Amino acid sequence: MVLGSNEVVVPTERIEEWIDSVKPRRILVQAPLGLRNAIPLIINVLDRRGVEAYVSMSPTWGGCDVAVREARDIDADGIIHVGHTQFLASHPLPILFIEGWYSDPEPLLRLAPKVVELLRGYSKVGLGATVQWTTHLSKFADELRNAGFSVLIGAQEGIRIIHSGQVLGCDYSSLKSVEGNVDCFVVIGSVFHALGAGLVSDRRVLSVEPESQRATWMDDMVRKIYSQRYANIRRFKESRRIGIIVSVKPGQMHLGLARKLKSLLERHGYDADILITDEVSEPLIMESRYDAYVNTACPRLSIEDQARFSKPLLLPSEVMVAIGRLKWEEIIGKKIYLSLSLPEV
Amino acid sequence: MVLGSNEVVVPTERIEEWIDSVKPRRILVQAPLGLRNAIPLIINVLDRRGVEAYVSMSPTWGGCDVAVREARDIDADGIIHVGHTQFLASHPLPILFIEGWYSDPEPLLRLAPKVVELLRGYSKVGLGATVQWTTHLSKFADELRNAGFSVLIGAQEGIRIIHSGQVLGCDYSSLKSVEGNVDCFVVIGSVFHALGAGLVSDRRVLSVEPESQRATWMDDMVRKIYSQRYANIRRFKESRRIGIIVSVKPGQMHLGLARKLKSLLERHGYDADILITDEVSEPLIMESRYDAYVNTACPRLSIEDQARFSKPLLLPSEVMVAIGRLKWEEIIGKKIYLSLSLPEV
Repeated sequence: MVLGSNEVVVPTERIEEWIDSVKPRRILVQAPLGLRNAIPLIINVLDRRGVEAYVSMSPTWGGCDVAVREARDIDADGIIHVGHTQFLASHPLPILFIEGWYSDPEPLLRLAPKVVELLRGYSKVGLGATVQWTTHLSKFADELRNAGFSVLIGAQEGIRIIHSGQVLGCDYSSLKSVEGNVDCFVVIGSVFHALGAGLVSDRRVLSVEPESQRATWMDDMVRKIYSQRYANIRRFKESRRIGIIVSVKPGQMHLGLARKLKSLLERHGYDADILITDEVSEPLIMESRYDAYVNTACPRLSIEDQARFSKPLLLPSEVMVAIGRLKWEEIIGKKIYLSLSLPEV
Repeated sequence: MVLGSNEVVVPTERIEEWIDSVKPRRILVQAPLGLRNAIPLIINVLDRRGVEAYVSMSPTWGGCDVAVREARDIDADGIIHVGHTQFLASHPLPILFIEGWYSDPEPLLRLAPKVVELLRGYSKVGLGATVQWTTHLSKFADELRNAGFSVLIGAQEGIRIIHSGQVLGCDYSSLKSVEGNVDCFVVIGSVFHALGAGLVSDRRVLSVEPESQRATWMDDMVRKIYSQRYANIRRFKESRRIGIIVSVKPGQMHLGLARKLKSLLERHGYDADILITDEVSEPLIMESRYDAYVNTACPRLSIEDQARFSKPLLLPSEVMVAIGRLKWEEIIGKKIYLSLSLPEV
């Protein structure tokens, strides 16, 4: 199935097969805002097969954010989740994850000469992509190889990275698996994903965006983010009342981490409450009772949404720096920077 | 306990007694934004009693909107819910509802002469108030009686209306219980509640707001709302693709009603999907796939939030008008107008 102008292929044909195996009675269909035009086609398949279809209206930000609670509330016996790959190893009910792919490699391949030019001076390149571009990754690697580069595509890793070279906003383990053998990285898809890679690696990262035909080194943006983050750590150190945010989204809930942080912060003289929410929104952050926050939900909230909040929203690794347990140099450019677990302290 | 400048009394002493009876291990504390300064005091009581305290960051809009799912997600064995009275007859876990009251009747009593003046020409007055003013309702009634009015305070009704004269944004049964014997209503607390009363009654409603020292007849606002609502019904009739919104909030979930509406709408030539959500937000309403919506969640979303949505968000009763099953005159000024159940059709 091809979806209009953006040409994202959503393989709805997989639904039939899944219905045959799961035999659901009532299904909740969920898609991120940009892919919601796939929903009528899915409902159509379900209607034809006599399966009751309900649509989740809530936003979804990743495979971590599956509407399991809504499905339970309406007594659905399955979920069809569009746009992301599976994030958690298991769920309490059957879920069909159908991602989408760009059908046409041309906008990506057209960028190859520009990328080759920008990579001048390097010889070994690590390659990653958002799920929508993974199907064209090896073709692009061939272009770079033809231009004389040695190219490594990150491995499939764990249960989250099911395509070679796939990157998530919070999981760059495919890139990290080849980091030791490359001079720099190329991340295809979005600045969002390339920036994340830049934050957890000490290699330079080139962002390649086929849609806008842009290719940009991430160094400046990484440096800018780090300097903003460091300023937030300073402000956090002057705060007293801390809210530790826990999201109840299935793949974002880190209650144990929150408890560990609460006890650490209290030992260092802070007052800390654990705050439970689904979405982390501006009015809730700006509520006056807390001077600063710790984010145990989606790590990218501290990067992309910090400007909207205007109160510090530290990552767990940054809290370790604020209380003097780790040095700034020990977290930046490292996997731990965006991590939602902490070293034993 | 008295809370700062707004002088809302939240009887936190009830917590001790409740802890003795429920013996909780882990509690989720929830309060609306305006009453969140009560939270530290509550946490303090829980801390002293060795009960683990977690704070819900999500907004809450009423006794219908209790964080039961969040509590379950973090394995809490009870909820302390501030600011509203109980809405549902039962919950899957123990919940202490502690409302708040204005400590000082003076701002209300000071308005009595103005109210007496505005009520000139009437003799029998029905009195209602938001929960925060119910404790001072009989004193205010005495003022009106001294001025020569016959005053009736609506009865306690069902499980939702636990104080005489109490009104909710969606439940005016205490006023309706005396409607036949009064010429007009006085609603103390907010324009929001007075307007709701005006929408479900054919009696005039006077809004009395002690905080701003205003007293206003609601007729003009009721007429304006009705004219906007009628325009939305017309726009709905020209729509084809309808989204029927179901909220999963414990006291706002009307899945049976949504199914009934879907089948009615389809019989009248519309395409209708049932949409599941928690909060009903602007980006989700403005999503382009649906031309118009039906609201089975909080009825006030169609009144107060319609202007932000710019696509029709009809109430169930208004859908009945749109499909020709009821006449406009059969719903306005009647209890059914804000109702979340439909007459058998």
